[in-house]
Amino acid sequence: MKPIKNNPSPLPDPPITVWQTTSFGGSPTVYTRPLARLIEQLQHLPGVGPKTAQRLALHILKRPEDEVKALAMAIVEAKLQVGFCSVCFHLSAEPVCEICRAPNRDSSTICVVADSRDVIALEKTREYRGKYHVLGGLISPIDGIGPDQLHIHQLQRRVSQQKIEEVILAISPSVEGETTTLYVGHLLKPFTRVTRIAFGLPMGGDLEYADEVTLARALEGRRDLE
Amino acid sequence: MKPIKNNPSPLPDPPITVWQTTSFGGSPTVYTRPLARLIEQLQHLPGVGPKTAQRLALHILKRPEDEVKALAMAIVEAKLQVGFCSVCFHLSAEPVCEICRAPNRDSSTICVVADSRDVIALEKTREYRGKYHVLGGLISPIDGIGPDQLHIHQLQRRVSQQKIEEVILAISPSVEGETTTLYVGHLLKPFTRVTRIAFGLPMGGDLEYADEVTLARALEGRRDLE
Repeated sequence: MKPIKNNPSPLPDPPITVWQTTSFGGSPTVYTRPLARLIEQLQHLPGVGPKTAQRLALHILKRPEDEVKALAMAIVEAKLQVGFCSVCFHLSAEPVCEICRAPNRDSSTICVVADSRDVIALEKTREYRGKYHVLGGLISPIDGIGPDQLHIHQLQRRVSQQKIEEVILAISPSVEGETTTLYVGHLLKPFTRVTRIAFGLPMGGDLEYADEVTLARALEGRRDLE
Repeated sequence: MKPIKNNPSPLPDPPITVWQTTSFGGSPTVYTRPLARLIEQLQHLPGVGPKTAQRLALHILKRPEDEVKALAMAIVEAKLQVGFCSVCFHLSAEPVCEICRAPNRDSSTICVVADSRDVIALEKTREYRGKYHVLGGLISPIDGIGPDQLHIHQLQRRVSQQKIEEVILAISPSVEGETTTLYVGHLLKPFTRVTRIAFGLPMGGDLEYADEVTLARALEGRRDLE
């Protein structure tokens, strides 16, 4: 594998996203080819621009070989081993995820979220001890995402076939989130109690700086002092 | 490969840097094992904390398999293929780097820098058409780095054996940088002209906000108007 061209062609290289090495004329000679490829690949990651990609790449080149291989291995193995739980569609390396298999979690409560990262966020609170259901997105007709593209059908089956006492809808209050909440709520109400997480002033938030919609929601959701 | 433990032991796991999955009792069940490993590995990268690592890892899981493999491959290949140029010690995938091999670059001028990233920064200016020499660090007695730990010996050989008209020292004005500049300067002065890059007010910089040392340097380095 010869990564570097040595032809003295006066034609410029085709446009590329990063500086690359060329060896003719007075052209830029900044990154050696494998380094340019790595920088290019790293730029596909979210929030990684050319400068961060260069810093990460140069850092990788300085680390010991086994550490670099461990990183590459972790990337490939995570991709190959992690799929979706067949019950709740959370990320899982097993056919059924740990949360669904946990014997001491409350099987009569299902918390419905849009994405696996919402499960992770909720788990970190250590407050919720029931089960989950990951929809895999939100209803968005503009993007061509209807109820059939999400795991709503499977949720309905879970709720209708098992003894579920409560379904908590934990979905962000965006346009798509509201649509999804309404749709799923109507669908499940014949089978069980359906609730929705509270919206209002965030903890530590300043009332003065809260937007009107949040304030209106906070007023609407007011509760008696105990 | 069974990544998840199923023993109902009441003993907690040994301390680890990220949340991991365990399946007993009321313990946290946040990341499935391969995902936890990936997040842990990503946190070794500079500027990547737990939140960024999670975002990157979940992004990687969502990408197509071939794209993920391309990233892992680029990481390993860059590490295995990129070494140092035997002449100037810049990063190179070949025994002698592109800059050293370029026939149309001025071989009589050597720009001396501390690190390969300085070469990249200087090349991006497209102003310099000579050769380079990467020292691989700066003299720092506190850290046990003396001239013998750097590529100073090889620089002296280059300068004494070839027809070098000018050596430009492009080293940051830190304590270690000044020490290194003085040392290398004295070493090479018998053989050739030794210069040093200018220090002063940065372009676009406001005189009012410049620190005293920079201003003093800018005054000291003043030049006749042409």
